[in-house]
Amino acid sequence: MSTINETHNPQLKSWLATANLAECDFPIQNLPFAEFRRAGSKESFRGGVAIGDQIVDLAALNHSGLFQGLDQKGLDQKGLDQQGLVQQALAAAAQPTLNQFMAMGQTACSALRQVLSRALAEAAPDQDAVAGCLVPQSEAEYSLPCDIGDYTDFYTSLHHASNVGSLFRPDNPLLPNYKWVPIGYHGRASSIGVSGQTFHRPKGQLWDSASEAPIFGPCKRLDHELELGFFIGVGNKLGSPIPIESAEDHLFGVCLFNDWSARDIQSWEYQPLGPFLAKNFASTISPWLVTMEALAPYRAEFSRPSSDPQPLPYLTSEKNSALGCIDIKLQVLLQTETMRVAGSPPEQIAMTNFVHSYWTVAQLVAHHTVNGCNLRPGDLFGSGTQSGPELEEAGSMLELSNSGKRLITLKNGEKRTFIEDGDTLILRGYCINDSGIRIGLGEVSSTVLPALV
Amino acid sequence: MSTINETHNPQLKSWLATANLAECDFPIQNLPFAEFRRAGSKESFRGGVAIGDQIVDLAALNHSGLFQGLDQKGLDQKGLDQQGLVQQALAAAAQPTLNQFMAMGQTACSALRQVLSRALAEAAPDQDAVAGCLVPQSEAEYSLPCDIGDYTDFYTSLHHASNVGSLFRPDNPLLPNYKWVPIGYHGRASSIGVSGQTFHRPKGQLWDSASEAPIFGPCKRLDHELELGFFIGVGNKLGSPIPIESAEDHLFGVCLFNDWSARDIQSWEYQPLGPFLAKNFASTISPWLVTMEALAPYRAEFSRPSSDPQPLPYLTSEKNSALGCIDIKLQVLLQTETMRVAGSPPEQIAMTNFVHSYWTVAQLVAHHTVNGCNLRPGDLFGSGTQSGPELEEAGSMLELSNSGKRLITLKNGEKRTFIEDGDTLILRGYCINDSGIRIGLGEVSSTVLPALV
Repeated sequence: MSTINETHNPQLKSWLATANLAECDFPIQNLPFAEFRRAGSKESFRGGVAIGDQIVDLAALNHSGLFQGLDQKGLDQKGLDQQGLVQQALAAAAQPTLNQFMAMGQTACSALRQVLSRALAEAAPDQDAVAGCLVPQSEAEYSLPCDIGDYTDFYTSLHHASNVGSLFRPDNPLLPNYKWVPIGYHGRASSIGVSGQTFHRPKGQLWDSASEAPIFGPCKRLDHELELGFFIGVGNKLGSPIPIESAEDHLFGVCLFNDWSARDIQSWEYQPLGPFLAKNFASTISPWLVTMEALAPYRAEFSRPSSDPQPLPYLTSEKNSALGCIDIKLQVLLQTETMRVAGSPPEQIAMTNFVHSYWTVAQLVAHHTVNGCNLRPGDLFGSGTQSGPELEEAGSMLELSNSGKRLITLKNGEKRTFIEDGDTLILRGYCINDSGIRIGLGEVSSTVLPALV
Repeated sequence: MSTINETHNPQLKSWLATANLAECDFPIQNLPFAEFRRAGSKESFRGGVAIGDQIVDLAALNHSGLFQGLDQKGLDQKGLDQQGLVQQALAAAAQPTLNQFMAMGQTACSALRQVLSRALAEAAPDQDAVAGCLVPQSEAEYSLPCDIGDYTDFYTSLHHASNVGSLFRPDNPLLPNYKWVPIGYHGRASSIGVSGQTFHRPKGQLWDSASEAPIFGPCKRLDHELELGFFIGVGNKLGSPIPIESAEDHLFGVCLFNDWSARDIQSWEYQPLGPFLAKNFASTISPWLVTMEALAPYRAEFSRPSSDPQPLPYLTSEKNSALGCIDIKLQVLLQTETMRVAGSPPEQIAMTNFVHSYWTVAQLVAHHTVNGCNLRPGDLFGSGTQSGPELEEAGSMLELSNSGKRLITLKNGEKRTFIEDGDTLILRGYCINDSGIRIGLGEVSSTVLPALV
């Protein structure tokens, strides 16, 4: 688990003024990674780090050789080794995918973060040279940050599981395994896209109670799922479980994740092997990966009601109990086509916090590998839909509309039960604490197109 | 769907004598692809084609330039184009993974097959030069044939679904969706290995009815699953379903697939999102991919009992009804540690045929993409466990032992209900018809090691 160091200092300011604005997602304490290029260009994608409203182009920075000379005077062997690590980390992070950088682990990531933090801080030398490596975020487009070998979706929100369970299985909402097993299942990697993704409303088999047979047609109950996505850094070998004590060392960082779902396809197909076509038509992630190190000041205690079964030993550690949770505020916004045409901003339809999660990310890593399953750098874990205890904290339309039985009325008078054609769904997330520093995850936005004829 | 051509001629013989033996899996009519190198060497893996007891080293063949001059005299433009296609196909198939070759589609694969068939046929010129590109199979080791982006497992055997359903849900064995939906779910790509894979017995949460709580320990009900693996060649774009009429054009070839399963972990974890740790600790494929073209003479009619619901239109085509099935004989063999020490050969414990499958591979492709989900070259489809109508045709120990209630007695007196430590499980498969030509899939073998302490 990352510890607090100079990069977290709330007093730090950047020489880039936009990074110091209170509402900015990307202050100097954040420094998340993405893959970007100038929008509409044929440039190669390369790694970048967000600062204020700009991106530090890591390929340009690597090419500049700026970090090769930094602080070398008077360095001892340890300092020179660290310098070498920074060089390697920068070269890896400048590539068209971050997999190689992710595979280097948190020490390398942390070394690069420290040097970037110093180079972007108010009193930094070489400001002009670093400024020459900046690209405005407003001119950028993003790709997936890495090749995603395998994507696993979990089900960590007890509130979501209970809410959905009561709709799918009214007599048996929360299954007996829920409080013992961090339930997860494998998802589809090929259809994961980055923010800005558009997709056609999926078609599939839907149960028609009138004819007592399925019909084929466009999904009528299209839904978002408010999730976080966690990317694996260092993997493990097949047959070598990751103990919970070191589980977080295998995490690279976190993003926002909308795991689009077709509820009517799901309810017909999901027995006995789980969701399939209901989920694999599109899933959208935010471009910026906030590192576990940047999240260090926002950790929270993990505890369970004493009346609940306590986790089995392989899911238990002191470290996990002390600071296993992460306090990330999560927001769902909807912008209908009518709102977009009228120039109205997206409207918040739900707000919750990852701190409600019944399982920690460390528990997910330990559980996933306890049977020997191997993780690879760039693998993605979905947190599962995050819902809090209250209705307005629900992370899906299924819950917000009580399975379509309650109309959600927007400020302009439009009504929704599920997501309609032309709707844009936006997730935002950020950490903030008494220091006033806001560590933003940015946003993920995707838009639903009508079903293909 | 591939048509019969000169490469299928049952009269064809090879100048390589071992290819002409009746029991040989790899006659000149087969020509399957794999990735191989000399065992224990540090050579690069490269594509190879099996013939008799040898492998045509495609990298060596490509390097030799042999096919560059072949038959060029007197070729018209179409012939020259074909020659160019063969060159490109050979160069792609010689790479360390077959993904690029798979992406070229069946026309390229077929063009290369035709040239290989001619070069290996009895009266071929340049026999010595081609013979110089052979590596004995006895000296080879194999890797996965390609990078597997996504692996999907289906559930196509009605007999298996009914057998297992009656054990997991005695009151509700075959779910109402089974005869409508080709049930599938996403599996884990990272833990798929090639024949020869060994793995430690997985540990996990097991339900203990005495304590009415789960305990943690080694799986006690370890099981094989007799499956076929189908590899995708040409993919499709996200949002562009593949119609059933052209579904088979997107298939590259088939292998044997053992989808190892921990039944006790499965029964506790699988609700509501499907199997997870019960499946993702290891899955093993045979190294050789038999092309769809090689299977062309072994197609069979696909029909359903008229009392069953007929497939929805997107799963129906004349082509699929006429020759949707494939007649592949499938065999399960067990070799215990005691048998291995005694030098006894593996013993057959089940035998069935893929012709019993309730869904065709074309239906799986059409279903998987009907919601817009994209497939990529190298994606793997598991057929799901194949069981025939009779007990001795069951593709899992769960079925053969009636969930552990019936002891299976081997010839040496050993008894089994599930798979024990030290057991080697072997799957074999082949097509044969009146022509006497045997198109073998080779075998997949994997061995269970004791659980880690």
